[in-house]
Amino acid sequence: MRALVLLRAFSRAKAHTLLFSSHCARRHCHAPAKRERAKGPRILGPDLPDIWRSPPLDSTHPPPPLIDANQEINPTIIDGNSIAEEIRSRTAEEVHQMKDAVKKIPGLAVILVGQRRDSQTYVRYKIKACHEVGIRSLTAELPEDCTEDEVVDSVSRFNEDPSVHGILVQLPLPQHMNEERILGAISLEKDVDGFHPLNVGNLAMRGREPLFIPCAARACIELLTRTGIELMGKHVAVIGRSKVVGLPTTLLLQRHHATVSSVHAFTKNPQDITRQADIVISAAGVANLVRGSWLKRGAVVIDVGTNPVEDPSSEHGYHLTGDVCFKEAVKVASAITPVPGGVGPVTIAMLLSNTLDSAKQIYGLNC
Amino acid sequence: MRALVLLRAFSRAKAHTLLFSSHCARRHCHAPAKRERAKGPRILGPDLPDIWRSPPLDSTHPPPPLIDANQEINPTIIDGNSIAEEIRSRTAEEVHQMKDAVKKIPGLAVILVGQRRDSQTYVRYKIKACHEVGIRSLTAELPEDCTEDEVVDSVSRFNEDPSVHGILVQLPLPQHMNEERILGAISLEKDVDGFHPLNVGNLAMRGREPLFIPCAARACIELLTRTGIELMGKHVAVIGRSKVVGLPTTLLLQRHHATVSSVHAFTKNPQDITRQADIVISAAGVANLVRGSWLKRGAVVIDVGTNPVEDPSSEHGYHLTGDVCFKEAVKVASAITPVPGGVGPVTIAMLLSNTLDSAKQIYGLNC
Repeated sequence: MRALVLLRAFSRAKAHTLLFSSHCARRHCHAPAKRERAKGPRILGPDLPDIWRSPPLDSTHPPPPLIDANQEINPTIIDGNSIAEEIRSRTAEEVHQMKDAVKKIPGLAVILVGQRRDSQTYVRYKIKACHEVGIRSLTAELPEDCTEDEVVDSVSRFNEDPSVHGILVQLPLPQHMNEERILGAISLEKDVDGFHPLNVGNLAMRGREPLFIPCAARACIELLTRTGIELMGKHVAVIGRSKVVGLPTTLLLQRHHATVSSVHAFTKNPQDITRQADIVISAAGVANLVRGSWLKRGAVVIDVGTNPVEDPSSEHGYHLTGDVCFKEAVKVASAITPVPGGVGPVTIAMLLSNTLDSAKQIYGLNC
Repeated sequence: MRALVLLRAFSRAKAHTLLFSSHCARRHCHAPAKRERAKGPRILGPDLPDIWRSPPLDSTHPPPPLIDANQEINPTIIDGNSIAEEIRSRTAEEVHQMKDAVKKIPGLAVILVGQRRDSQTYVRYKIKACHEVGIRSLTAELPEDCTEDEVVDSVSRFNEDPSVHGILVQLPLPQHMNEERILGAISLEKDVDGFHPLNVGNLAMRGREPLFIPCAARACIELLTRTGIELMGKHVAVIGRSKVVGLPTTLLLQRHHATVSSVHAFTKNPQDITRQADIVISAAGVANLVRGSWLKRGAVVIDVGTNPVEDPSSEHGYHLTGDVCFKEAVKVASAITPVPGGVGPVTIAMLLSNTLDSAKQIYGLNC
């Protein structure tokens, strides 16, 4: 009966979405959510009711190793570059089809404030990726000492520009700026980063659908599902709880019916929790935080960290390393993402995919 | 430096809130959140940055019992009735002050569709509680077979009524209705149940403040903090993930820097997770799901379940029981809420408090 209710709510939500019209397009209103149209595994997970079985017996279940103690570990190194390439190819193809169908292409506007080298690098990657798939990119670069109003004005101009379908403000912003106000100024329909609280709320609530899911969270799920890793019923430890990665990843995993433990800097003995987990996703931003001893044998490890570590032998004086001590983890894990070449490229591919989705929605394609 | 950023964002948010004016009052806009004004422990928890310490040593930390094995258990039975009475008294006092100051009292509108006996009972409790503290209550009762539009019309009338400061639609609605549409019709500023996705998103995102926090989640935190139980760094297992209890409780606990594991019907061996937890909050809706063996010695137990169990000896043919097998849990827990007389009355008191907060906001009192 509960399943019936859910199905009914689902089809009504769909009808509601189809009625979603342009009168709502420029307001931060209570917008009905659009359908997730990504091909492949449905990114929001299946709508399933919670039906509790009879209380289990009181037996003790020590967490079993995912791989037998005597079995040799031969871990899968999850190739983010190759998965990103697949997503980019599909995106490029759809951009091409859009151009044929409506003589339009998706447009992404990037706002960069100040001259942080890491931010400049990320923005360069994003623009290059847009170019590769045929998405038009626009950049607004503002000086570190500009006013908050100037940033909001930039956002407003892109909100009004019909050739722009996605807007992102590269974070972090300079300290004198109110991030909430600036991100809140982005039109909900162009919030391809998915950081608007209405998007976050709709991601959190089962049966609801956000307009956009934050890119890093989508990337983690894509990496897992494309590697054939089942999420339903799995115990996942998510380390870190930022709005960019940890929080939306936790919420999205719950939509896939994983059991999620959220580990953060206030967690006492985080390794006691991670050692119970079938999957560990780390987005703490601390180099080598997760040691091999933090992992259950056979665990799957997704490393979202990209931490610069001083390295005089490197061209730029540093190299990037993840949150996970790779050389230790690789001896215990059954599958693991490397840094670089793991989550990073897939996250950028998801940004392209979100921008394409936004343009398709606006042009009424496959909605 | 990060702390500085947060403090700055905090004071800006405050300034933003003070500017919150009536032009926003009737729209589902991107409303700035109002300050939580509840006295006593700040309900949203302290804004603290995540600062990771150096990676801990690789030692093993088996979860210690909260109480020594030889120590006699003398559990605190957390008295929800008495805590609810304290909250109601404070609310009544503030309602009185409001009447003196602006010649107005808060108003709560309750919409009841159909004739479910449990729903009728809950609505009766809520109206009685309003009466006791001087809050005006209005009820719209609609037949089971009314249309969705008729319910939305009722909501709209209460949205427009300036004497109504809080609107709640008693759930569950009849199966032919789209709950999302009906709840979405409630003005954000009168959403005292806190189920609007914008409220949920702002609850999920650190540094943001929802207009209202769902009553049962507030109740759980009040019961814990008023019993002197520290949340920061504690491992909490939340059983159940409904938008009414489990989800907002998880989000609110995270704001208090607890480490939260979310257990649901798809969780394999839930007792393996609950046995690690310092605090177990159960809102599964399954009588006696949580056995004594599911608990660590000395754990704190908050039982949100109110499950009718057939009982020919009772006046109504049934009695209410919680999710937790009380007679077993009381031998293991250091503190536990009973059912009835635990979470229930505090949840209703929180509804009164949310309605009062809404009226204070609208009349510009203590904002």
